[in-house]
Amino acid sequence: MPIPTEITIVEVGTRDGIQAEKRPVTTEEKLCLLEYIVAAGFRRIEATSFVHPKHVPQMADAEEVLARMPRRAGLEVEALVPNVRGMERALRCEIDTATLFVAASESFNEKNLRAGSAAMLKAGAEAAKMGLAGGLKLRGGVVTAFGCPYEGRVPFEAVERVVGAYMEMGCAEVNLADTTGMTNPSAVSRLVEHIAGKFPTARLGLHFHNTRGAGLANVLSGVQAGVDTFDTSLGGLGGCPFAPRATGNIATEDTVNMLAEMGVETGIDLPKLLEGVACAEEIFDRQLPGQLLHAGVPEWEAGAV
Amino acid sequence: MPIPTEITIVEVGTRDGIQAEKRPVTTEEKLCLLEYIVAAGFRRIEATSFVHPKHVPQMADAEEVLARMPRRAGLEVEALVPNVRGMERALRCEIDTATLFVAASESFNEKNLRAGSAAMLKAGAEAAKMGLAGGLKLRGGVVTAFGCPYEGRVPFEAVERVVGAYMEMGCAEVNLADTTGMTNPSAVSRLVEHIAGKFPTARLGLHFHNTRGAGLANVLSGVQAGVDTFDTSLGGLGGCPFAPRATGNIATEDTVNMLAEMGVETGIDLPKLLEGVACAEEIFDRQLPGQLLHAGVPEWEAGAV
Repeated sequence: MPIPTEITIVEVGTRDGIQAEKRPVTTEEKLCLLEYIVAAGFRRIEATSFVHPKHVPQMADAEEVLARMPRRAGLEVEALVPNVRGMERALRCEIDTATLFVAASESFNEKNLRAGSAAMLKAGAEAAKMGLAGGLKLRGGVVTAFGCPYEGRVPFEAVERVVGAYMEMGCAEVNLADTTGMTNPSAVSRLVEHIAGKFPTARLGLHFHNTRGAGLANVLSGVQAGVDTFDTSLGGLGGCPFAPRATGNIATEDTVNMLAEMGVETGIDLPKLLEGVACAEEIFDRQLPGQLLHAGVPEWEAGAV
Repeated sequence: MPIPTEITIVEVGTRDGIQAEKRPVTTEEKLCLLEYIVAAGFRRIEATSFVHPKHVPQMADAEEVLARMPRRAGLEVEALVPNVRGMERALRCEIDTATLFVAASESFNEKNLRAGSAAMLKAGAEAAKMGLAGGLKLRGGVVTAFGCPYEGRVPFEAVERVVGAYMEMGCAEVNLADTTGMTNPSAVSRLVEHIAGKFPTARLGLHFHNTRGAGLANVLSGVQAGVDTFDTSLGGLGGCPFAPRATGNIATEDTVNMLAEMGVETGIDLPKLLEGVACAEEIFDRQLPGQLLHAGVPEWEAGAV
């Protein structure tokens, strides 16, 4: 299959990227990052989450972040929404898309998301109905689609079940997440082919963590399997607050640079993005996992042979 | 092309991995790392270098390292050899293979290797003749094959010229090196296909640095192009002492884990290798770039669907 010539990057740095930071990240700091992110030309940003502040205190300021973040024509703003209560909050804000989520593995739902799979899907369906009625687009996140820290390998059928439920709920896109960075390029292509075979009309996205170093290899495999939408986080910020040993999302700048060098367009202004990464390193006072800021963009025309 | 079911990893940690370390690494420390490396079952180890100690003081103890390092049946020990003088030293030691090297870009040869391409190739040819007469196998390293920090893009023809010279010298294998981590998966497959097309009998290896995060994506692309030999460094130790902004080699453990998860055999004992990485982190007193030690090997049977 020829690789897509254009890839959509969903920047999740101010959501997945910082929800597990140990110290509270201020609203001003989030807005500062979002200034750079919007200026860099992303078409999609998952800016925040409406998970209950009791569970993810870092996202308690979701309303304020959405009210004050910069906007640009053509930019779609997204937020994570776990249930009806979160959807009620989301509908009072200016967003385009609500990302629902449920794990493909029962243990992850029970231990980390505080409800069994059936209850999670029921809550999602109720929230979905409300979101669609309110004019939102929906995307369905399949947590632990490529492996569960408690159960290990997750059967394709378990992923298929969640994807099927999302399709019935009216999700415009389904996002397969390797929550704790357990997958590999062969498993990526196998699962993508399986799900695309079962749901030929589903638009698929992929969400990788670089926990074991294979993040961009998994992106390559996803691209080769025809997927054109990837979640990334500037600087490689990230880690799931509920997942043991989860580490950062794949770094936006390293992903964009690799794709650009391959001649694949993302529409993102890399120098502007790197200013945002530098800002993030100041805010979090440490060198982040993304490598491009320190290595530098190769000084040649990207994408040329 | 079906990916190879077996991959050979050449461990270069005690050579490329530490030649740019700021403080002198003692012989005992190198031997300690080599103990773990040999115990982990590598079939090939580039243990040291016969570059003049004036240029790379870190390798001044090459003879002692080779005399004292552990051996195992089936293990091939290799060393970097720049010229006749280095080959004289190499031939007095117990090694199987001498790795010659020359950059594909003129500026890199002149600025960093202190001789123009023609002089480098002439020195290599003299050393090759001596090495073959002494019973050594030769491998030819093409430095900056995927990009030069001074010249930028390196034409395929420049790489082809060096590979052709190595074939004439009688090299059993040619190693294409992305010395400063500038390449991307598309460029990898294009160069490999070009060189394999021009030299159908050449055995090709690849040497990547993870400078911009795409190291394992480049391995995946190389594997997909049919290459079955890769240089890696335990912990992702590394960096070229002469190359601006060069950072670590791709980490052996992350590479081996990705391949194992894909069902590709390397013959390396991952838990034993991780003991060696832990030892390296103690020796160098810092967290190294390789991620598997801290993330842990996924607790399932590798390679299964």
